[in-house]
Amino acid sequence: NENIVLVSRAFRRQFVIPEFEEFTDKIEKFYYTCKEIDTGKVAAYIPQLERMSPNYWGVSLCTIDGQRYSIGDVKVPFTIQSCSKPLTYAIALNELGSEVVHRYVGQEPSGRMFNELILDHNKKPHNPMVNAGAILVLSLLLNLSEVDMSLAEKFDWVMNYFKRMSGGEFVGFNNAVFLSERENADRNYALAFYMRENKCFPEKINLRECLDFYFQCCSMEVDCESMSVIAATLANGGICPTTGDQVLKPDSVRDVLSLMHSCGMYDYSGQFAFTVGLPAKSGVCGGLLVVIPNVLGIALWSPPLDQSGNSVRGIEFCKELVSMFNFHRYDNLKHAVNKQDP
Amino acid sequence: NENIVLVSRAFRRQFVIPEFEEFTDKIEKFYYTCKEIDTGKVAAYIPQLERMSPNYWGVSLCTIDGQRYSIGDVKVPFTIQSCSKPLTYAIALNELGSEVVHRYVGQEPSGRMFNELILDHNKKPHNPMVNAGAILVLSLLLNLSEVDMSLAEKFDWVMNYFKRMSGGEFVGFNNAVFLSERENADRNYALAFYMRENKCFPEKINLRECLDFYFQCCSMEVDCESMSVIAATLANGGICPTTGDQVLKPDSVRDVLSLMHSCGMYDYSGQFAFTVGLPAKSGVCGGLLVVIPNVLGIALWSPPLDQSGNSVRGIEFCKELVSMFNFHRYDNLKHAVNKQDP
Amino acid sequence: NENIVLVSRAFRRQFVIPEFEEFTDKIEKFYYTCKEIDTGKVAAYIPQLERMSPNYWGVSLCTIDGQRYSIGDVKVPFTIQSCSKPLTYAIALNELGSEVVHRYVGQEPSGRMFNELILDHNKKPHNPMVNAGAILVLSLLLNLSEVDMSLAEKFDWVMNYFKRMSGGEFVGFNNAVFLSERENADRNYALAFYMRENKCFPEKINLRECLDFYFQCCSMEVDCESMSVIAATLANGGICPTTGDQVLKPDSVRDVLSLMHSCGMYDYSGQFAFTVGLPAKSGVCGGLLVVIPNVLGIALWSPPLDQSGNSVRGIEFCKELVSMFNFHRYDNLKHAVNKQDP
Amino acid sequence: NENIVLVSRAFRRQFVIPEFEEFTDKIEKFYYTCKEIDTGKVAAYIPQLERMSPNYWGVSLCTIDGQRYSIGDVKVPFTIQSCSKPLTYAIALNELGSEVVHRYVGQEPSGRMFNELILDHNKKPHNPMVNAGAILVLSLLLNLSEVDMSLAEKFDWVMNYFKRMSGGEFVGFNNAVFLSERENADRNYALAFYMRENKCFPEKINLRECLDFYFQCCSMEVDCESMSVIAATLANGGICPTTGDQVLKPDSVRDVLSLMHSCGMYDYSGQFAFTVGLPAKSGVCGGLLVVIPNVLGIALWSPPLDQSGNSVRGIEFCKELVSMFNFHRYDNLKHAVNKQDP
Repeated sequence: NENIVLVSRAFRRQFVIPEFEEFTDKIEKFYYTCKEIDTGKVAAYIPQLERMSPNYWGVSLCTIDGQRYSIGDVKVPFTIQSCSKPLTYAIALNELGSEVVHRYVGQEPSGRMFNELILDHNKKPHNPMVNAGAILVLSLLLNLSEVDMSLAEKFDWVMNYFKRMSGGEFVGFNNAVFLSERENADRNYALAFYMRENKCFPEKINLRECLDFYFQCCSMEVDCESMSVIAATLANGGICPTTGDQVLKPDSVRDVLSLMHSCGMYDYSGQFAFTVGLPAKSGVCGGLLVVIPNVLGIALWSPPLDQSGNSVRGIEFCKELVSMFNFHRYDNLKHAVNKQDP
Repeated sequence: NENIVLVSRAFRRQFVIPEFEEFTDKIEKFYYTCKEIDTGKVAAYIPQLERMSPNYWGVSLCTIDGQRYSIGDVKVPFTIQSCSKPLTYAIALNELGSEVVHRYVGQEPSGRMFNELILDHNKKPHNPMVNAGAILVLSLLLNLSEVDMSLAEKFDWVMNYFKRMSGGEFVGFNNAVFLSERENADRNYALAFYMRENKCFPEKINLRECLDFYFQCCSMEVDCESMSVIAATLANGGICPTTGDQVLKPDSVRDVLSLMHSCGMYDYSGQFAFTVGLPAKSGVCGGLLVVIPNVLGIALWSPPLDQSGNSVRGIEFCKELVSMFNFHRYDNLKHAVNKQDP
Repeated sequence: NENIVLVSRAFRRQFVIPEFEEFTDKIEKFYYTCKEIDTGKVAAYIPQLERMSPNYWGVSLCTIDGQRYSIGDVKVPFTIQSCSKPLTYAIALNELGSEVVHRYVGQEPSGRMFNELILDHNKKPHNPMVNAGAILVLSLLLNLSEVDMSLAEKFDWVMNYFKRMSGGEFVGFNNAVFLSERENADRNYALAFYMRENKCFPEKINLRECLDFYFQCCSMEVDCESMSVIAATLANGGICPTTGDQVLKPDSVRDVLSLMHSCGMYDYSGQFAFTVGLPAKSGVCGGLLVVIPNVLGIALWSPPLDQSGNSVRGIEFCKELVSMFNFHRYDNLKHAVNKQDP
Repeated sequence: NENIVLVSRAFRRQFVIPEFEEFTDKIEKFYYTCKEIDTGKVAAYIPQLERMSPNYWGVSLCTIDGQRYSIGDVKVPFTIQSCSKPLTYAIALNELGSEVVHRYVGQEPSGRMFNELILDHNKKPHNPMVNAGAILVLSLLLNLSEVDMSLAEKFDWVMNYFKRMSGGEFVGFNNAVFLSERENADRNYALAFYMRENKCFPEKINLRECLDFYFQCCSMEVDCESMSVIAATLANGGICPTTGDQVLKPDSVRDVLSLMHSCGMYDYSGQFAFTVGLPAKSGVCGGLLVVIPNVLGIALWSPPLDQSGNSVRGIEFCKELVSMFNFHRYDNLKHAVNKQDP
C-alpha cells in the first residue's frame, strides 16, 4: 500500500492536492461569494461576544502535507467555544481509551437541542458534542487522567494538547469571556446537577471545578490559521502536518470524526451530514472547524449565526465547496462526473 | 483522474481488491465465527416470519468490478422488508430529484423508534428509513411519477428497478407475507392517517392503495446473492457492476448512502455509525445490506434479531469486518497501522 | 338526614334556590354581559359547523327540583359533539360498572391536547373525556353490553338514554354532520389504529363500526333547554328532576362529575377547575354543559371558540357566576363573606 | 343564611358531626384495619428518614367546631416535608394575592413526576405542589413580601404562620434533616438553575438562600395532633377552629384546596381525586394532610410509602373513609343511599 501512495503522489505531483493554486483560486472565489451575505445574528448572551463585528470573515486551510492558504481575518483571535468539544473529546479518547470514555457518554445524535435537559436511555449524555457530554468528558479528564495534577496544571496540560494540534501556532485564553460565561451558566449548572443526580459522573467529582474547567476550555482563543492546522491534524489521523508530531492516535481521531459527522452542527447536524457530508464542529463565536479526512483541514470564522447557532457564512462556504468538489463523504469517486477531484 | 485510476488499478492487479482470495479467506473466517452465535429472536408478528429457521445464515459479496463471493444459505429467498426502504427512496430520488422528495420527507435521524408516531419540526416524517418516511416516499412514486400507470403496472415498474439493481438476478414476491403484513398493520395505518391529517402527502392520495403498495414492496423477495449485487450497485455510484447498467444517478446514490449511514439500523443507527461506520440497512426478516462505497456491496442474512431489530449475526459480522479492514468511513488510510487495506 | 333536608327546604321556601326570581335576574344580567363579547372563532373543519352564526347565544338552567329558566337561542338545535363524552361514559359506568370501564380507560388529566396520539403509563387512554377515551368507552358499549343488539338498535338505545336524561325533551340526530365528521377523521382513525395496536380495545372489536358509532354520538342534536335538563340529571345524582326517572346510579354520576371536574374543558381544564371549580364539559359546536351538584344544571351555547376550543361566552358566563355565587367547589360556605348563597 | 346554619346546628345537636362518638368508633376501626398493612418502603435518600420505624402509625382529626380525636403515634414529631407546600402556598396567596402568585406559577396538574425538569407552556412551574413550584413560591415570600426581614426573621415569620394554623400546638424544626436535605439536593438545584435560566423567579433572587429556605420549610416538624388542627384550619376557611384566629383569607384557602384536590398526591393525584375526591397533600416522611371542607381536618402519619411516594396506610385509610361516609366531593348528598352522612 505504501507503494501506491508514493506512486500516486508522484502522478499527482507529490501532493494530495496537486494543482494547489487552481484549488485555492476556487476557495478565494467562495470566500468572496460568502462575504456578500449579511444575514444572521451575532451571539449576544454575554457582552464579550455581542461586541464582535459581524463583518469578520476569515478562511484558512491546511492540507495533510502542510500546504497552507488563508484569506480574510485569519489572524484575529476568537474564543473557540464549542469547537473545543471535539478536541477535549479527542484528548479523553487518547488518554483513557474509547471504552472508558463511552462508559460515561453516548454516541448518538440526540434529536434535541444542544443544551436540552435530557439523558439517553442509559442515563448518559447523548454524545460529547452537546454541552452535557462535553462537561462529562472534562470531568473524566479531571478525575480519571493525570490525577496528581492541580486544576491549574490540568488546564495547562489541555492547552498544551491544543497547541500541539495547532503545530505550535496561536492558542490563547480570554479571561473576560471565561468570567462572563461562568456568570451566565444557569443551564449548564442545571445540566451538571441533573447529571450528578443521575450518577453520570465518576465518583467524588467536584462539580464547580468541573464546570469552571468547562468554561475555561470554551474560553481558549485561536485564530483561523491555528485552527486550520488543528483541523488538518484531525484530517491526518492525529499527526500534525506542520510538525509531524503524533498528537492523537488514529483510532481516537476516527471516533472524533464519526461524532463530528453526526452531531457537530447542533440542530442542523442531520441536514449538514446529508448536504455537506463532512465532519465539522461549530461554535457560538462563529468558528467552524471542517475536516476533509486524508486531504485537508479548514477553519472558517464569521460571527453572525443562523437560528441553529451555526455561522451563516461558514455553512454557505461548505455548501459551495461540496457542490464543486467531490468531498462529500458519499460522493462517488469514479462516476460523479459533475464534480471535480482537486 | 482517469489516469490515476488506471495506474492504480494496474499496481493493484487491476481490481479494487487485488488480493481477492486472501480477502475472501477472511470473510469465510468471519462467517464461521458468527455462525456460532445462537442469541437473538426470529420476528414473530406474522406466522410467515415466525416459521423461519434461526439457523439460516448466508453471506454474499460483490465488488464494484464484479468479483463475487458467497457462503452459506445464499440461495434461499427471504422477504426484503425494510431493506426495500433505501431502494424505493433511491428510485424516488432518481425519478423526482432530491429537491422534490425532501419537500415531503426529512433527512435527520429521529432519535426515536422506527415506527414512532411522530413527525419532525416541519411536520414531515424524519427520514425515508423509518416507516412513516418510506410510506410517504411510496406515495410520491404513486402520485408524482408515471401517473398514467395502473397500480399493477407501478408495482412491476418498481420490481423491475430492483431487478436492474440486482443485475437481473433473483427478485420475487411473497403474497402470503403481503397479506399477513396488511392484516397486522395497525401502527402503519395509524401513521398513515396521522400523516394525512398533517397534510404530509401529495394531494389526492389514496391511503389504502398507498399502504398496499408499501406492504407489497416489503414483501418482495431476494436472496443473498441478488442482494449483494444490489448493494454493489449502490457502492458503484448506481452502475450495476455485473451488467454496466446505469440504474441510478450518482447523486441519488450519494443521498441514499448518507441516510443509510445515519438512519439505517433502527435504534442502533448511531452506535452502528460510530462503531462500524458504513452505510447499511437492516430488515425484520434478518437481512442486512451493507455498502462499502467505491469498493463492494455485502448482503448478510440470518433471521434471529437483537432488541433493536437487527440481525445478531449480521451486526457481529460487520464488527469483525471493520476491526480487520480499514472500511470504517473515518479510518485513516495512511496512519492506522493496525488495520489492513485489502 | 331526611328530616334535615325537609326542614331546610321549609326554611328556604321549599326549594334549593328559594329566591329563584332574584337568582334568575342575575343570570339574565350575566347573559347580557356575555352577549357583548365578539371574540372567538366558529369551528371550521367541517362545513356544517362553519356555517353556524357566531351570534347564537343561549342559556338554560334547571334546578334539581325542576325549576327552569331560559334566555336567548335556547330552542335552536346544535350537535352535542364532545358534550356527549360524559354521557356515554355515564352510560358505560351504569351498565358495566366503574371497575370494568376503568380496566380499559384511565382517570387522569393527560396534560396534553384532547386528541394527542398518546396513551398513559398503563397503555390506556388517559380518561373518557379525550377522544381516545371516548372512542374506547363506545367500544365497550358496543361489545360488552347488550351484545345481541344490532348497531342500529345500539344507536337507538344510547339515544334513548340521552332522551331519558333530558326528561324526554329534544334529542335529535344530524346526519350531514355525521357524514362530514367521518370524512374528516384522520386523527380519530390514527388514534383508533394506535389503540388497537396497543390492545386497548376489548377483543374482536370492529374498528370501523366503533368509529362510526363515535361519530354518530357526536352528531346527536340537543338544544339549550334539553341539555339543561341533562345537566340537572347529573346534578341530581342521576334522577331526572322533571320526570323523577332514575336514569343513572348515583355512583356512576359521582365518577362522571369527578372527571368532568378535572378533564372536561380540554387544555383549559386545570385552570377552569381552579377558577370556576365546577364539573363541566364543552364541545366544538360551542355547547357547554355545567353541573352544580345538588343544586342545578346549566346549558350554555355560543359557537365562537377560544384557542382551547371552549365557547368564549360560555367560559365568561361561568366566571361571572362563581364570582357572585358560592358555587366553586371549594368556596367556604360559612366564612366567604363576599359571595352569595342563592 | 346565618339562620339556616343555626337551625341546622340545633337539629344536628349543634355540631357538624352530631354523633361524634359513633363517628370516631368508625375511625378507630379504620385505624386498626390499616395498622395490619405491612407493605411500602420508608424513604431512604437521607439517613434521618431511613431510620424511621415503619411501625409508626397515627391518626388525628379535628372538626371545624373544634372536636378532636386521636389514636396511635400522634405525639411523635416528624418532618413536614411536602405537606409544607400547600401551607407556604397559602401564606403566599394570603400575603400577595392569587393574581401575583399565579403570575409566577401555574394551576395545572403536570401529568409528570413531582420533580420533573419541565415547565409549562408559559415557562412557569406547573403548580405550587411540585418541587419547582414550591421553590418558586418561597422565592416570592422571600423577595416580594416583608422585604426588610432578614432570612432568619423570614423563617420565624413562616414558622409562626404554621403555628397559628395549628392553634399554637407543636411545630418544631429538625436541623439534621435540613442539613441532609441540602446535601442531597442535586435535582432541586437543577430545577432552580433551570428556572432561573427561564426567568421564572422575581428579579435579584439569591438562588442559594431560596433553596435553603425551601429545605428549611420541608424540615419543620409537626405531629399528628398539630397537623390535624392545620388541616381543620383549611377545612374552616382559614379560621383556626381551636383558637378562632383568622389565619388565612377564605379565598386563599379556596385556591389551596383546589390545587390540593388536583395535584396533592404526586403521580397518584388524578386517581386519588377520582377515588377519594378530597383535597390532600402527602410528604416523603409519610405524613398525609386531608381536608374535608366545612367539616373537619385529618392528619395521617405512617412512614412506609408506595411507588408514588404516598403513605400506604394513609391512602388506605382515605379509601375506607369515603367508602363509608359521603365525603367524596361528588357524592350526591340526597340520593346516594349506600353511604352515611355522619
